[in-house]
Amino acid sequence: MVTEKSPSGVSRRNFLQAVGVGSSAGVMFATMGAMGLAPTAAAQPPSTSWVAPLRSDFTLTGRAARKVVVVGAGPAGLASAYELQKAGYQVTVLEARHRPGGRTLTIRGGDSETDVDGVTQTARFDDGVYMNAGAARIAQWMVTMDYIRELGVPYEVFTNMNADAYIYNERSGATPGNPIRNRTAKADLFGYVSELLTLATNQGALDQELTAEDKENLRSFLRSWGSLQPDGRYRGGNNRGFEVYPSAWNEHGTPLPGPGTVSEVLASRVGQYFPFELNWEQAMLMFQPKGGMDTIYRSMVEAIGKQNVKFRSPVTGVENTASGVRVTYTASNGHARQIEADFAIVAAPPFVMRRWSSNWGPDVDAALGEFTAGSPAGKIGLQYASRFWEDDHRIFGGITETDMDLSKIWYPSYGYGERKGLVIGYYNTGANARAYADMTPKQRELRAVEQGVKIHGEKYRTELESSFSIAWHKVPYIEGAWAFPNTQSAGFKLLQQGAGNVYFAGDWMSEISAWQHGAFWSARYAVQALHTRVMTT
Amino acid sequence: MVTEKSPSGVSRRNFLQAVGVGSSAGVMFATMGAMGLAPTAAAQPPSTSWVAPLRSDFTLTGRAARKVVVVGAGPAGLASAYELQKAGYQVTVLEARHRPGGRTLTIRGGDSETDVDGVTQTARFDDGVYMNAGAARIAQWMVTMDYIRELGVPYEVFTNMNADAYIYNERSGATPGNPIRNRTAKADLFGYVSELLTLATNQGALDQELTAEDKENLRSFLRSWGSLQPDGRYRGGNNRGFEVYPSAWNEHGTPLPGPGTVSEVLASRVGQYFPFELNWEQAMLMFQPKGGMDTIYRSMVEAIGKQNVKFRSPVTGVENTASGVRVTYTASNGHARQIEADFAIVAAPPFVMRRWSSNWGPDVDAALGEFTAGSPAGKIGLQYASRFWEDDHRIFGGITETDMDLSKIWYPSYGYGERKGLVIGYYNTGANARAYADMTPKQRELRAVEQGVKIHGEKYRTELESSFSIAWHKVPYIEGAWAFPNTQSAGFKLLQQGAGNVYFAGDWMSEISAWQHGAFWSARYAVQALHTRVMTT
Repeated sequence: MVTEKSPSGVSRRNFLQAVGVGSSAGVMFATMGAMGLAPTAAAQPPSTSWVAPLRSDFTLTGRAARKVVVVGAGPAGLASAYELQKAGYQVTVLEARHRPGGRTLTIRGGDSETDVDGVTQTARFDDGVYMNAGAARIAQWMVTMDYIRELGVPYEVFTNMNADAYIYNERSGATPGNPIRNRTAKADLFGYVSELLTLATNQGALDQELTAEDKENLRSFLRSWGSLQPDGRYRGGNNRGFEVYPSAWNEHGTPLPGPGTVSEVLASRVGQYFPFELNWEQAMLMFQPKGGMDTIYRSMVEAIGKQNVKFRSPVTGVENTASGVRVTYTASNGHARQIEADFAIVAAPPFVMRRWSSNWGPDVDAALGEFTAGSPAGKIGLQYASRFWEDDHRIFGGITETDMDLSKIWYPSYGYGERKGLVIGYYNTGANARAYADMTPKQRELRAVEQGVKIHGEKYRTELESSFSIAWHKVPYIEGAWAFPNTQSAGFKLLQQGAGNVYFAGDWMSEISAWQHGAFWSARYAVQALHTRVMTT
Repeated sequence: MVTEKSPSGVSRRNFLQAVGVGSSAGVMFATMGAMGLAPTAAAQPPSTSWVAPLRSDFTLTGRAARKVVVVGAGPAGLASAYELQKAGYQVTVLEARHRPGGRTLTIRGGDSETDVDGVTQTARFDDGVYMNAGAARIAQWMVTMDYIRELGVPYEVFTNMNADAYIYNERSGATPGNPIRNRTAKADLFGYVSELLTLATNQGALDQELTAEDKENLRSFLRSWGSLQPDGRYRGGNNRGFEVYPSAWNEHGTPLPGPGTVSEVLASRVGQYFPFELNWEQAMLMFQPKGGMDTIYRSMVEAIGKQNVKFRSPVTGVENTASGVRVTYTASNGHARQIEADFAIVAAPPFVMRRWSSNWGPDVDAALGEFTAGSPAGKIGLQYASRFWEDDHRIFGGITETDMDLSKIWYPSYGYGERKGLVIGYYNTGANARAYADMTPKQRELRAVEQGVKIHGEKYRTELESSFSIAWHKVPYIEGAWAFPNTQSAGFKLLQQGAGNVYFAGDWMSEISAWQHGAFWSARYAVQALHTRVMTT
């Protein structure tokens, strides 16, 4: 669970955890009632915390564990099945595709994907080289960290930012044809921002906002943060980095060209990339499982039991029956099959669900219809014979930002010191993602490389060994990178109630769509609603 | 070598490298002459580049390899010996202490250190738990990266900053008794800075500095970077983090208290810690060898040959003779010994060298005397039975900054997912380091823990299993954490000439003292000066 430190006292969540440990489900549910948290209607989960179902909830109450069909072996589906299975539920997971993880897709050598247009790519990556084609990073506060730790998945730093990565804005200001380091761009922009604010402060422009003491505190910060000269001006400095760094014996270092004028620095629009590092979902440190993000889902499948997860089994119908639910699917041998169960948790894209035969009615269908389609996003993995970004450019991870249609280049956070490596050659969304998606895989590679050469030189072309690209809106049964809910809509709240014995889960059912964190929490709440109902009816 | 990208063309360094590869030493030196880089006097190394000595420099010229005594098995001494040995020199390294690495000191279970006061500590860390008591981090541009890669030492990210680590300023402003997250402090300070500069810009206070277009570019940056509201004001936001993060089903997250007023945020002095992340030596990404920094020096000793490195062998005299040098030392059996060699490279602290018997004369002695003493710095390693900073505080690495005398708490960048872990409980310098150094090891531990409890609660005390502390100015034969040269002084330049057949090396002989990078470059230049002389006389 998310255990935030609460210096002001014991949070309700911590209190419930404390009660839950070593107590029977009865005590837990009684305590929740006393706190005003007890479920008041069958489908109303407690609104503020996660209380995992436990085997003792059944053994101590004499209730029988139930059978649940989970549709979708992505993060939400597998987490649902994993939590239910831990508590003794009989679970069957049906997955349309050939692998677990959904949009958490790790591509390794030999992996094949066929898109909705029928185009097949097979990765020719070397052993140990992989590409996280979908979800790739985890913030420390995310519940994803709890799952990888509970599952014993080894993890390592994901290098979400790097002062030595480049910014390459060829359409604006001072940098066309000349990539600059993140650290240089930051030093210049923060230097000028500090200079300007110092100037305004000294002129008295902020006297209505600031006391004399405030002004001195502010100037003190700006002087240091902006590397200002004693006269309050910015004129560059060591934090920009060097053409050749200082070494010894009076080699003081060869400065980089610049800084440009304040107008040039502002016009270069390098600052558009800096808020990312402050972003609540993106700020470092971030983490990744060693060996690929789908390691999480391989581990979950192991825990659930491989025999309980059916791949290549697309669902065609989910219906409530008098006694529970009936799920219809096409088995991997091509035959139609049905499973009867007490409940279903469906964790597929909402626009895909609407194509199923169902009897959940027009309101639920309309609520699912609020998600019209998944957004496009694309990535290409480029395997190189050498790690020239490390050898020649001294970039050991992180992200180069550009205003080209490749958008970003990601350097690998793993495999340091190995001979070969894999770069994400584009990670783009919207119109750029559609443009790449409409190309053949070879055309995508050529375009990404053509642009990357502008930053990294000819090795970006000559060292390339193989590539694999994904266009998320063309992946069968997934059809998009993400879809954001209107969490205030009546339809969204309706979906939280479920439909009869069917519950909905997915990152799109969360407050943090497009993240595994959201998918996991949606799964927890669906599981909790289901379990609360089992325990109280 | 430092291979900086030079988009503008081939640098002199790259050209020399290109010439060097596959060419004889004769061609190399001839080329250098044509470029005006050839040594003009025996002790004048080429001033702009590193050209490693090669075995072929001897085999192709018929010259005989020479014998060199290296004093000191720290980074400068071992790198000197390593480079010389690769080229066929006969090297003997004399080290006063019992281990290699100098101020790069990794403490593992069973390691013992006795300080100059005779106080002995023996580490009781578990297997796999270690403490880098000295050098701990490597920037990407540093030559240290080249050595760990050449030696095949595995490496990983060193977490030099973490948005989820704390800032705890108990003596100033709004935070006493209440640690706040780095991300929260940043959001608030950057938010107000953006608000103030937007306001001043809108008021026309900067019209003499900025064009209308500049102003729009600036406002656009500040709006995003400071998470400003449409009215240009800062009122908090998601980037501050949450008391409870958003999850699913209309749990939008529980905000943290705050933000305080602009006066409160400025008075809290949280901003004093933010320039660190922009610092040219400290900006992320940074790296560390897996398993401890001294892995570098263990590997170098292997490469040099263990039989060529004599530990517990403090030098007492270095003298030029008619044919070379004579080095006197006390062997590990307590007997005085002498070695005759062609040259010596001495890489010991300068204030220690002055105690040796020498015949390098008063000018060199005075130049060494410019380094009066090493500065104090201290660290304590605290082994904990559980990783509560990860479990309870969601801090997976990085540094908590404080205004207490412990100064900083470092969370480990290794061992994620393991049961136990080691925190650096203080890393301080100056008066704070002297204060801790004057305590017993147990007193140091108690004081560090008493302060850490204010941030992490009682687990910081109750989970503690063992500690080990270092006070660098009390380590025999080292006597300080660092000493900075006046690189403009005549004395410093005199030391670069060497004294007869004796050359000086050490981070204190570099442009970047206190870093392995500086030590390595000083070694390279000493080696180069020596080798150039061998090749040209």
